[in-house]
Order: sequence, then structure tokens, then C-alpha cells
Amino acid sequence: MIKAGIIGATGYAGAELVRILMNHKEVEIAWYGSRSYVDQDYADVYGNLFQIVDAKCMDDNMEELAELVDVIFTATPQGFLAGVLTEDILKKVKIVDLSADYRIKDVAVYEQWYKIEHKSPQFIEEAVYGLCEINRDKITPQTRLVANPGCYTTCSILTAYPLVKEGLIDTDTLIVDAKSGTSGAGRGAKVPNLFCEVNESMKAYGVASHRHTPEIEEQLGYAAGKKVLINFTPHLVPMNRGILATEYASLKKKPDGTYPTYEEVKAVYDKYYAKERFVRVLKKGMCPETKWVEGSNYVDINFVIDERTGRIIMMGALDNLVKGAAGQAVQNMNLLFGFDEAEGLKMVPLFP
Amino acid sequence: MIKAGIIGATGYAGAELVRILMNHKEVEIAWYGSRSYVDQDYADVYGNLFQIVDAKCMDDNMEELAELVDVIFTATPQGFLAGVLTEDILKKVKIVDLSADYRIKDVAVYEQWYKIEHKSPQFIEEAVYGLCEINRDKITPQTRLVANPGCYTTCSILTAYPLVKEGLIDTDTLIVDAKSGTSGAGRGAKVPNLFCEVNESMKAYGVASHRHTPEIEEQLGYAAGKKVLINFTPHLVPMNRGILATEYASLKKKPDGTYPTYEEVKAVYDKYYAKERFVRVLKKGMCPETKWVEGSNYVDINFVIDERTGRIIMMGALDNLVKGAAGQAVQNMNLLFGFDEAEGLKMVPLFP
Amino acid sequence: MIKAGIIGATGYAGAELVRILMNHKEVEIAWYGSRSYVDQDYADVYGNLFQIVDAKCMDDNMEELAELVDVIFTATPQGFLAGVLTEDILKKVKIVDLSADYRIKDVAVYEQWYKIEHKSPQFIEEAVYGLCEINRDKITPQTRLVANPGCYTTCSILTAYPLVKEGLIDTDTLIVDAKSGTSGAGRGAKVPNLFCEVNESMKAYGVASHRHTPEIEEQLGYAAGKKVLINFTPHLVPMNRGILATEYASLKKKPDGTYPTYEEVKAVYDKYYAKERFVRVLKKGMCPETKWVEGSNYVDINFVIDERTGRIIMMGALDNLVKGAAGQAVQNMNLLFGFDEAEGLKMVPLFP
Amino acid sequence: MIKAGIIGATGYAGAELVRILMNHKEVEIAWYGSRSYVDQDYADVYGNLFQIVDAKCMDDNMEELAELVDVIFTATPQGFLAGVLTEDILKKVKIVDLSADYRIKDVAVYEQWYKIEHKSPQFIEEAVYGLCEINRDKITPQTRLVANPGCYTTCSILTAYPLVKEGLIDTDTLIVDAKSGTSGAGRGAKVPNLFCEVNESMKAYGVASHRHTPEIEEQLGYAAGKKVLINFTPHLVPMNRGILATEYASLKKKPDGTYPTYEEVKAVYDKYYAKERFVRVLKKGMCPETKWVEGSNYVDINFVIDERTGRIIMMGALDNLVKGAAGQAVQNMNLLFGFDEAEGLKMVPLFP
Repeated sequence: MIKAGIIGATGYAGAELVRILMNHKEVEIAWYGSRSYVDQDYADVYGNLFQIVDAKCMDDNMEELAELVDVIFTATPQGFLAGVLTEDILKKVKIVDLSADYRIKDVAVYEQWYKIEHKSPQFIEEAVYGLCEINRDKITPQTRLVANPGCYTTCSILTAYPLVKEGLIDTDTLIVDAKSGTSGAGRGAKVPNLFCEVNESMKAYGVASHRHTPEIEEQLGYAAGKKVLINFTPHLVPMNRGILATEYASLKKKPDGTYPTYEEVKAVYDKYYAKERFVRVLKKGMCPETKWVEGSNYVDINFVIDERTGRIIMMGALDNLVKGAAGQAVQNMNLLFGFDEAEGLKMVPLFP
Repeated sequence: MIKAGIIGATGYAGAELVRILMNHKEVEIAWYGSRSYVDQDYADVYGNLFQIVDAKCMDDNMEELAELVDVIFTATPQGFLAGVLTEDILKKVKIVDLSADYRIKDVAVYEQWYKIEHKSPQFIEEAVYGLCEINRDKITPQTRLVANPGCYTTCSILTAYPLVKEGLIDTDTLIVDAKSGTSGAGRGAKVPNLFCEVNESMKAYGVASHRHTPEIEEQLGYAAGKKVLINFTPHLVPMNRGILATEYASLKKKPDGTYPTYEEVKAVYDKYYAKERFVRVLKKGMCPETKWVEGSNYVDINFVIDERTGRIIMMGALDNLVKGAAGQAVQNMNLLFGFDEAEGLKMVPLFP
Repeated sequence: MIKAGIIGATGYAGAELVRILMNHKEVEIAWYGSRSYVDQDYADVYGNLFQIVDAKCMDDNMEELAELVDVIFTATPQGFLAGVLTEDILKKVKIVDLSADYRIKDVAVYEQWYKIEHKSPQFIEEAVYGLCEINRDKITPQTRLVANPGCYTTCSILTAYPLVKEGLIDTDTLIVDAKSGTSGAGRGAKVPNLFCEVNESMKAYGVASHRHTPEIEEQLGYAAGKKVLINFTPHLVPMNRGILATEYASLKKKPDGTYPTYEEVKAVYDKYYAKERFVRVLKKGMCPETKWVEGSNYVDINFVIDERTGRIIMMGALDNLVKGAAGQAVQNMNLLFGFDEAEGLKMVPLFP
Repeated sequence: MIKAGIIGATGYAGAELVRILMNHKEVEIAWYGSRSYVDQDYADVYGNLFQIVDAKCMDDNMEELAELVDVIFTATPQGFLAGVLTEDILKKVKIVDLSADYRIKDVAVYEQWYKIEHKSPQFIEEAVYGLCEINRDKITPQTRLVANPGCYTTCSILTAYPLVKEGLIDTDTLIVDAKSGTSGAGRGAKVPNLFCEVNESMKAYGVASHRHTPEIEEQLGYAAGKKVLINFTPHLVPMNRGILATEYASLKKKPDGTYPTYEEVKAVYDKYYAKERFVRVLKKGMCPETKWVEGSNYVDINFVIDERTGRIIMMGALDNLVKGAAGQAVQNMNLLFGFDEAEGLKMVPLFP
């Protein structure tokens, strides 16, 4: 039984970590960090956890926490962890960071898109990008710092990864049109996130400027073995959870001048995902629905080839708070401590 | 490891049974009965269960099923089980019936409210009304037939039960104003249940005529030790899951002419529920929210005393598909087989 | 053509006033008052009004405004108008106040429920309670100050009024269980009003303590000719607009010992509402749905008699922003200026 | 005052026609055709129209209707009008067809995508494609038959039209990712349209095979002066109304090798839309939200240039039942009869 601390435990991702860890056999939560609610009962902030969590909210003292626990989850604003992380802390405790601080290897790119100075670039190189399906072999008991991927990025990358890796698509043509439930916007009290502003409406936002863009580009660039530039357009959807990514790219023709067939593309997906516990490549003809993964750690993926235009349309769906945040963080923790990768993550999707 | 069969596995309550039993240590599902989808993959009907359930839908042959499994859940229309149940079947298998067929002891009342003839009244007496918190001692390995309570009724009864049992309220004044998510209406393809008909709207239905009325009256009558007549008004709410019951009754004055205090009423609730795993009497001042119990087997309860009018307002919330149907059915099964009552039911409520 | 000014034009009720007045033949809006958004384009605050409203937000200088316009609508927090209203202003301009400042005749009751001191009680007596269907004859070109009723109160009062007025029900037994869309909570940036907190959930709030209680009691008291005490329980519903009030009361028996029939009760409703433009008493058996009145000034009403319990269940539905706020304010303005009472209010309900 | 008949009056588009025409000064509805509800009160089918429409549903006898009215709206399934239309009917009455029967000039394309035989191809040539902003000069009192555009198509075409027409984008790269509220799926009682199936979920459907694809391609082809092939992907969104189209295309470079600037692109949009009553090109930086057009005939459009990728992202939003169906049909009718084009269509968008 290891001990975990959560910094940012009262945000939606933090609360989802709590929900998941409550049923994890190998972990107990020893610290519910939340600067905004210090000394308040955690269950007063999240009524769903009444009589399940009996603890007060604590502050965010990383040094004290590092002494107490085996792993720290930081579900904090951009820049927080970079501002407080030290070698001393990393010597004592493993960290799974749900913020973007260590996701992007090029600190200049980070600073350009996030508009903040990175306070501890010395740890960027060491940090492992925690997309388990791709980097599993780098997330080991020796790893100290995991940069847990973003919600949009996890969905966007996994949906296209096998085809990029195997060179089936022209990455210069890749467009990701993504749709997200509103929990992705966090629990901050802002007018645009009010029920009446979001409900019964749909809109794009952060067009050509969303911060998850360079993260997707970097990771797909590793897969492609070259620089990748994409269009990524996020949209806000009137639902609590769920991300759907619809991705478009030109299929490369085979040497014989024809396009790859459904079976050939499917085989490529299967090569990478057939043995994955949390990636489900759906049956031919089924389109992923976010409801089918709600509350679970699954990513559902499928694709359609359009010979008329020479493009493939790829679709991926996940729960932004689970596989897109807390679930993936627990999956990373499982790898860090040598637990069964699926421990605590066997939740069956809730429907309806 | 016991084997379970589900008749009506493709309704929402049936699918919720599947979701719950997937993580139950002592049970495997051996039969997914669904007359409408015979021979189709179950996961084609419920995409969320893709790669989780690998089975075809079967018909509803109770006799064959009785040979195969240890327990049958019937999540079927009213009258189905009453029409097929035999002594022979009951000798071979335990049955948890999610329909209303054996809930009401007075067959005349059943036939009057349900407008159908009861085909096997001989089993009514034997059936145990499976409201575990109240009838736990009657649900044992000797029990053969459990009448699993309705969703509205579970919520309505548990919310008022301690006060009725202890005589704190005048049951002649009891009014239950209940609100339900739309999954309570089932998966039938009907215009009034279409998204555009339900969304952004609220209405009452079945006013003074809903079939759950006599069930609530009968059970509260046992608690009161006298006939109870109530007003019960269900409402349809634009959400998937959740029932909220707001109940009104006149408080009886104490011998000194004053009303019971908050503490006195709270003590009565605690007497019945303090040790219950699935009933949470909230902190003073908190009103139950259906979201706080979503996906879980909890019932959240609280109350407010209004001295101006001499009434108490009681509130109860549960997930209609879990504690209001499948969760309670599993709780009953656990008692029937001597398992831990909470096995398979430790789901933490999903928020948001 | 008269000129209107709105103070509080960027709240939801203020914006609804704008929407309605855009299609009013006799009025133009000359002042969009909004302290929070002074000098910003009104259409930047409400994107729906882009290219429809071309005006900047102004401050809330009542004295200046009184010189400029013929009528002022104050859609402001409690206490604002009471704090600034003067005889001088009232000599120059008519005021329709959408706050509660002048709704309650007994200033002590106001101060007790609203927990603020009333700064200008001298105008309370003069103010007319603007429930047009009941007080139409007092809302005339001679009237200077109209207290526009609350959303819950309009619905709660109109639903029960004829039966209270004619003495058909025992007002000591009256219970109002009301359900409201979230726009009733206003546009303030508060965590409990966030999409993810409201969506997929339902709860009661302000139980036995909501401020609309004394307003309902006072008005029904006038109808009953005696003091009325009720239970009023508001609930928050995951929809934008709409209030549904479900009301319970014991029917008085007739001299012959029987209860009034459906036809007799219907006749009483018709006596008061048959000629009303905005009150629709539905056909027997139809339950009001909030969607059927969305975007319109209608109140839909119906009832069911339950002889088993001797109670009548009354139901009323309206759009809280129209008949519950801005629509009724315009209806009052029409009466104040001698326009057709329905001018600007002929919107057909939007469905779906 | 002209007389209108509606065939298919009880579908959502038909009901929206009724809502709009109720406030049209020049038209009265003389025939509510609905084969499914013949002889029933129209207001029993649409409760929102209680006491507003006092008429029975009629059958769909076009010949009889042609004698009675001046214009017929057919809001009917594909193939209906093509199956019954005759020269004799067209001599007596103007027809605005909301189905796809006469939208596509190439009957082979129609038959291929709709999988039905076209029964009256002789009228295709005569039919005017009723996208008023583009074909206004062809919709005149001499016109007999208008093919009212589809909801997705209206949005998709108008969003890209000026840039296609002026040759700013490479149409071979055009991708339309569209999102629609659920009323677009109609009022048929089907499981996938149930509240619990749609709510809290998002999915693509009809990928690379949706019937609106050739309609968009044909119209944009006329603008481009060459064959256009696009990817069009519709998605289902848990909201009642609204379509959002997010469109991607490569910008053509100018002769000097640079991309067009924001101002240059804006000028092209303004050239076509600045004087349009129902097209609003938003301020720089604002993204269209479907809620901003709800209940109105507006189309909101905006764009972002991404120099990194050389693409432009265009966004358009409309209400699928108004500008996407009934509103545009009325706009066409206004042109057919020489009324003010905006008569009956001045509804201000409903927010929230």
C-alpha cells in the first residue's frame, strides 16, 4: 500500500483522481491539497464523496508532502509545478503532473504558447511523456517525473498515431476537429462556463491558437520522424464529460496507385492497439460515441476511408477526466510502481 | 462463483445489471436474455460494453435458464414473470424480479393499478419485498423470490420511513413530489421520450394515478401500523439518471405542545440509517442532489423543519438505475447468497 | 413612440426585456444601463443581439435617465431601487421594478426575509403589485410605480388564485413544490451555477426559507381574505428557462358532503381566465410542460382532483424570463401607457 | 392576405413553419396536412400551440390543396413531392419544397445518394434552389417551384461561398465538419433519438456518405466554376436546435507569395453579405455560437487565418429549423409573392 498526495484536489481532475483511487487496491490518499479550501472538509466541496472521504483539505506544501507520500499528483494550473519542483523533492517522491509544465520538450515552444516563463527547464528532459500506450517502456519504477498528457492531446494523438507511425497518411494535411464536454473548462467561476451560457449551444474556441496544438504536433512528429504542423480546433459541447476528435488526412497511395483498403488500415490499427487494455478499435461502420466511454479509461477509435476525396476520416472518443486526465495519471502511477497497469481502472462505462 | 441470468438484459435496468455485475467478484453472467435482439451481439446493442461483454442475446426461456444459473434477474414488463413462474422453476433457481409482479401483497390492488390480471398470485405471499434496509432479515439463503422495489418507491419510502415508523409525522398529510431522470421511462422508441421532447422541459405525469402509489402506501402502511393514503406526483426531468423525492408532512407535536427539534428528528434518522452502507443522512443544511449519487448505490436523505407551518420537508435522492433498480437487485442477490452486502456496489458516485 | 430605459440591462431579465422590446411597435430603448459593462457594446455582452442592438452600456444614473425616458425598467438587485428612488424621479417617469423592493406591503416582512433595510418605505403603499390578471384595474396611465412580481410567485399565485378566491381549497394545507430553470439564478459567476454543477442534477434549495414565500402568501392572503401560510420549495432544474409549480391543497367539501367535480373546478378557473390572453387552462388530462410556453408570455395551468385523498393537484408553467419577469414587465408597461396589453408579447412558444 | 397549406405540418420543420407564419402579416394557414394525425387537433400534437392554432390535421391531398391555397410548403420525406407533383398542380399554386426532391440538378446524383428513383425529373430544371442570398434574382413572382435548401447545406455553403466564388481558397482542400442539434433528426420515434441516447454524448454519423454532401458540392461548384469534391462530416450534438459548421481550406497565396490578410478576407465576406438582413459576419475574434441565432433566421459567420498551416478556418452557425428549414422557406415565399423579404422573420434570437 503506497501513499498518494494530490495537489489541486478540488478541481474536476483532482476530484476524479479521488474517485478512482478510492477503489484502487494499492493506494491510499494521504493528502488532499487545495489552497482554496484549506481546512474545509473535502466532502463539503464534493458532496458525492460524503461518508466516502473523511479528510480536510490541506495546503500545497510540496516539501512537506514529499516526506509523507510515495507519489504526488499535481492537478494544478500551468506553471505551478515548474515553480516549486526541486531535485530534493524528486529524490523523495515520484510525481505525476497533470499540468502541461513538462509535456513539451522545447521550452521555447512552451513559453510561446503558454505565455509564461518556465521556471525549471532542467527537469524537462527527464520528464517522460506519460502516454502509456506509446511510451510504456519509459514509465518504470526508475522514472521520477511523468508529464501526464492533456485531454485533447491524448485523444488526438491516439486516434492518428498508428497511421502516422506507419506513414499511411500525409501529415501535412492533418486536421483535428475536436469537441469537448464542459468539465474540460475546469471548476472556475466564469460567466462563459455558466449553465445557461453553455447549455443548448455549441461553439469553437481557441481557433488556431489552442495550447494543446504544439503538444499534439510534437508527439506526432516523433511518430512521423519529421516536423508536423496541424490544424487543431477545439469546440465546447453542452455535456459534462467526453472528447470526440474527428481527424482528416489525405491517405497516401500505395505503389500500385490505389488507396489502402479498409482491411489494410485496420491491420495497422490492430498492430498497435489489439493488445491494449484501454484502446478499443470499433467494428467497421460504428462511430465512436463519447457516452460509450463515460466514466471509464477507454479510448474508442474508428475510421472511414473516402475514396472520392482520397482522405481518411479518423474518430476517437474518451472521457476527458479519465483517460484524458485522472485515469491516465493512475495508469502512469501503476506503471511507476509496477502494479497491474489496469488496477483501479476497470470501471465499466456508464450508460446512459 | 455463481451464475446469473438476466431476462430483459437490453433495457436500461438490464444493462445496468450487466455494468454492475462485470465488477462483482462472486458472479458471472451466463445468459443475456432479450427477446428483441436474439442472436445479436450484446455489445452491438450497448456500445459501451464493446470488448467487455462478448456474448449474444438469448431468448427468455425461463425453464432452460433455471437449469443453467443460480439466480435469474427479470427486468421485464409487468406481468411477464407472473405469467411464466412455476414452482418447478423456483425449486431450481432464485429469482430477483425487477418488475412489480410480486411487490404488492393485495392482488386486487395490483390488478386495479396495473390493469392486468395476475397470473400466479400463489407466489405473492412468499415473495419478499426487497428493500434491504427494511427487510434485510427476510432476505436470506432460504429466500427464493425477491420483489425488487421500484425506483420511485425506494426513494419515497426510505426518505420518510424512520419518521413514519416512529410516529413523528401525520401520515394522512404525507405528500410525495418526485422528480425523475428520463432513463426511468425505459428504452422504448416513443415520441414523448425523444431528446427534443424531453430536453429543456419539465412536466408532471401520472398525476394521482401512478402505479408506484400503492406500493409506497403499502410499505409505509406496514411501518405506520395502519392504512396510509398519500399523494404521489412524478415528474420528468431532462437528465439521464436520478430521482429526487421532496416529501411533505405535518409533524406531530410532542406532549409539551412543541415540535420535535432538528436534533430529535436527526436522532430518529440515525437510529435507522447510521449503520447503513448505502443510506447517507446529510449534514444539516445540505439538500440532496441527484448528481451526488449518480452511478452509485447510495440514497442521500435530509430534512428541514418548518415551524411556521408545522410541517417537515424531507428530501431523498438516488440513482434510479442503481439503488432504484439494478444496484438494489444486486444488493438483494448478495443477501440471498450470503455475500458481503456491498460486494460489487462500491462504485463512487460520478461527479460531474 | 415612447422611450424606455433599462437599469440592469445585462442580466438575463434585462436582456429579455431587450429581446421583447425590439419587436414592440410603441417603444424604443434609449438607455442600456449596466454598471458592470459601462462603455462596452451591448452586443459584445449578448452576442445574439449583434447587428440588432447598436448601443453602448451606460451607468445607472436614475436622475439623468428620468429626464430622458418615459419609463424605466429596473432589473436590479434587491435594495437598489429602494435606495435611489425619489419623489422627484417618480414625477418625471414611470417605473416598472423587477426587483422585490415594492412587492411586499409590510416592510417588516420584507426586511425579515430579505435581510436588508428598506430605504424608501414611503413608496410601498403607492406601488401597484403588477400581476396584471389580478390587478389590471390598478395599473393605469395614472400609476407611477409598478412592482413587477417574481417568477416563482407569478406562477404559484396564478395557478391557485381562482380556487383560493372562490374558497374551494383549504389554504392551510397549500403546498407549492416549484421547479425552475437555471436562468432564474442569474448571470453571476458562481460555482453552483456552472454547467457541470447544474447539468444532469436536480436539487431543492432555500427550503422553508425562500424569499418568494411571503410574496405568495401576501397575494393569496388578499384573495382568501385571511392570512395564508404555505410551504414553498424551489428546485433547480437542468434547463435554461421555465418554471413548473405543482401545488397541493385539500379541497373543501360541498354542503352535500361531496367534493367539487372536475367541471365545477374548471368553471371556476374559466371564470377568471377564460378571457385572459396569456393564461391557458389546458384540456382535461393534459399536464403543463415548460417547453410549451418557452419564449412566450403564456402561463399554462391545469389540475387533477384526487378523491382518494381529498386533495387537488394544481400545476402551472411559465417562462421565468417572460411571464415571470420581462414579459410581464412589458405587459405592465402596456397597461401604464394605454397600449394593447398584448403588444410586443405575441411570441409563439418555441418548440422544440 | 394569401393562403398557405403545409404538407407535413406535424414534423419539426412543419411546426416551425406554423410558429413563424402565426406572426406573418400577409399569410394565413389554411391547411395543416399530416397523414399521421388526420382529424386530430393540431394543438394536441403540439401543445405549445394550444389556443393559438384552432384547426384539425388534414390529409395530404395535393390536388385539393392546390385549389384552396396560394402556396404549399411540403415538409415531407424524400420522394413524396416528386411522386405527386404535376403540371396541373404547378399551374394553380406555388410550391416551396423542404425536401431534397428538386435540389440536385443531376438526377443520377440524386438517385445515387438518396437511393430512390426520382418520379418527376421533368420539374428539376425549373425548380430554383432557394438559397435566397445567392439566388435571390431567380426567386420571383414568376417562379413556381422552389427547392428549399437543407439545413447543413445552407450553413455549409453560406460559410464558404464568398471565398469560393472569389477564388481565395483551394476547393480541393475543403473540409466541412458540421455539428447539429437533434431536431435535425426529426420527430420519428427511434431509439437513437431518445433522450437518454443523445444526452451527454456526441458522435459523428453518415461519415463520407451523408446526403447533403452532393448538394453542397453542386452549389459550391457553381460558385467555383468547376467540380468540387469535399469531405462533409455531420455530428449529433445534445441540444435541440442549431448547426455549427467548421470548415477548413487552404488559402491561395497572392501573386506576391503571401497569404491574404484578415482585412482582405473580411472585405470579400462583406462584398457578399454586408447588405444581407440575415447573414452576420461577426467581429474579429468572435466565434459563432449556435445559441446566438436560436429561434431566428440569422446565419452567423466568422473565420480565422492560420499562417502556420496556410489554412483558413471558417465557421458558420444557424438554427436548423429556421434559416435551415422553415425560416428560409418563408423567406422564399416572401420573394415569390413580392413581400418584404424579412416579413415574419424578425424574431430576435432567444438567449439563454
